[in-house]
Amino acid sequence: MPSIACVNGMFSAPEEARVPIEDRGYLFGDGVYETMRCYQGRVWALDRHLVRLERSLREIAIPTALIPSIREWIDEGARRSGLWDALVYVQVTRGVAPRQHTFSSDLIPNVVMTMRATAGVSEVDRASGVRAITLPDQRWERRDIKSINLLPNILAKQRAHDAGAFEAILVEPDGRVTEGSSTNVFAVFGDTLQTAPSDHHILGGITRDLVLGLARREGIPVQETVFNIDQLRSAREIFLSGTTTEALGVTTLDGSPVADGAVGPITRRLFAAFEECVRGGCDG
Amino acid sequence: MPSIACVNGMFSAPEEARVPIEDRGYLFGDGVYETMRCYQGRVWALDRHLVRLERSLREIAIPTALIPSIREWIDEGARRSGLWDALVYVQVTRGVAPRQHTFSSDLIPNVVMTMRATAGVSEVDRASGVRAITLPDQRWERRDIKSINLLPNILAKQRAHDAGAFEAILVEPDGRVTEGSSTNVFAVFGDTLQTAPSDHHILGGITRDLVLGLARREGIPVQETVFNIDQLRSAREIFLSGTTTEALGVTTLDGSPVADGAVGPITRRLFAAFEECVRGGCDG
Repeated sequence: MPSIACVNGMFSAPEEARVPIEDRGYLFGDGVYETMRCYQGRVWALDRHLVRLERSLREIAIPTALIPSIREWIDEGARRSGLWDALVYVQVTRGVAPRQHTFSSDLIPNVVMTMRATAGVSEVDRASGVRAITLPDQRWERRDIKSINLLPNILAKQRAHDAGAFEAILVEPDGRVTEGSSTNVFAVFGDTLQTAPSDHHILGGITRDLVLGLARREGIPVQETVFNIDQLRSAREIFLSGTTTEALGVTTLDGSPVADGAVGPITRRLFAAFEECVRGGCDG
Repeated sequence: MPSIACVNGMFSAPEEARVPIEDRGYLFGDGVYETMRCYQGRVWALDRHLVRLERSLREIAIPTALIPSIREWIDEGARRSGLWDALVYVQVTRGVAPRQHTFSSDLIPNVVMTMRATAGVSEVDRASGVRAITLPDQRWERRDIKSINLLPNILAKQRAHDAGAFEAILVEPDGRVTEGSSTNVFAVFGDTLQTAPSDHHILGGITRDLVLGLARREGIPVQETVFNIDQLRSAREIFLSGTTTEALGVTTLDGSPVADGAVGPITRRLFAAFEECVRGGCDG
């Protein structure tokens, strides 16, 4: 099952797909994106991803008229690739123009897409949990926009990787825990599941929302409120959520075990409910 | 005199130059850049720009081995284009890889360049000064790295443009004035010229440094210290510095005249010294 790419509806192998150097996405990071998961040949939560994509576009004043075409290209890509468990990446940039900061409203956005098979999280990481480190959150103030300005995120993720960890959990100067470099962060305090509220400080994840819904359905008390790094260090459980991580236990934080160092019961319960949902054909 | 582009040493017209969609510059804004001015066929302050480029690369762990090649490509571009007064844009990205946040240290960076004739600032703007507005500084914390993560900058510049202004002057929550969306900001208080210190809050401009040096040579008292927005509103003069703006008076701030609303004597004196320097063959 081959990987494929698509540029404005033209399909090719990913290595062959090209864009002009004066695409504003390349010059300024002037674009937004979505990463979707294909489970058993079906793009999961496609509607929700397209709604969020449309919001991101609107927030930075890129026209949204291509959304219906994007839906068609994703459908066609899924058919052409025949991929079963895959990652679908879609990026929309403002368009091509000689470099200057200001932009004309009549630029034609560029849409690129890739689809690739994914193995997902390893069995070992799923069973034993992963390591995370904490780092200062150095990002801009509009993290609610899913933009391709991801330099702080990749630098944080790389620092985690270099430290033998899976993720960097980002902390503001006042100690507030925001999210991971590419995930949302959940913690269990007492019997309550807590995650940061969906505001400008974080990217409101689609998997985050699903997890919150599943927790409520399971009768687990849920709070969307800020917690700080000192609180996080005393959590009974920590897990990460995201399109590729799903719900993944963190069992070591900055080198110290989280509680007893094993993936906790609420994390396991929610991952089981998550699996049942996405494999069973729910849509979030 | 034609515009030209160059991708890793291959010259073409800018419209024909392409990069792979999986260039990390396109996916993450994972790259840095320099904009240089060519005066009378000579790239001004090339050494300083290459030193800053090298520092930016090092700060985000992109290998710097291509710097000597970049110098050659700039020289060759200047010869090929025959451009007299031009803008030279050089961007270095981490390289091409299937999308994931972490990166391997053995990726081969991509270098793209464009050279285009520039008319520079209009005579009217130079003589009468320009309008600026103030906006919250929403950027990330490492503004000293000249990265292509420029979404907050272009959104601020566009808001200025939509408001009929030339530039957005950015202000932190505590009132601290940092810089413009693509310029440094100078103000005259009493008989002293002041600009924000070169730290992580701003991009330490090469033109900024030249202006500071010229001011000292002219016997103008200079301070590199923070000022806030209330102080700025009472400045005797305000001007912007940058590779394309050079030293450009701001005569209206948020709709109100700056002092008497005319380009001030220190701004005029420094622009004259700047002109003499760059046209006279100095190197900053």
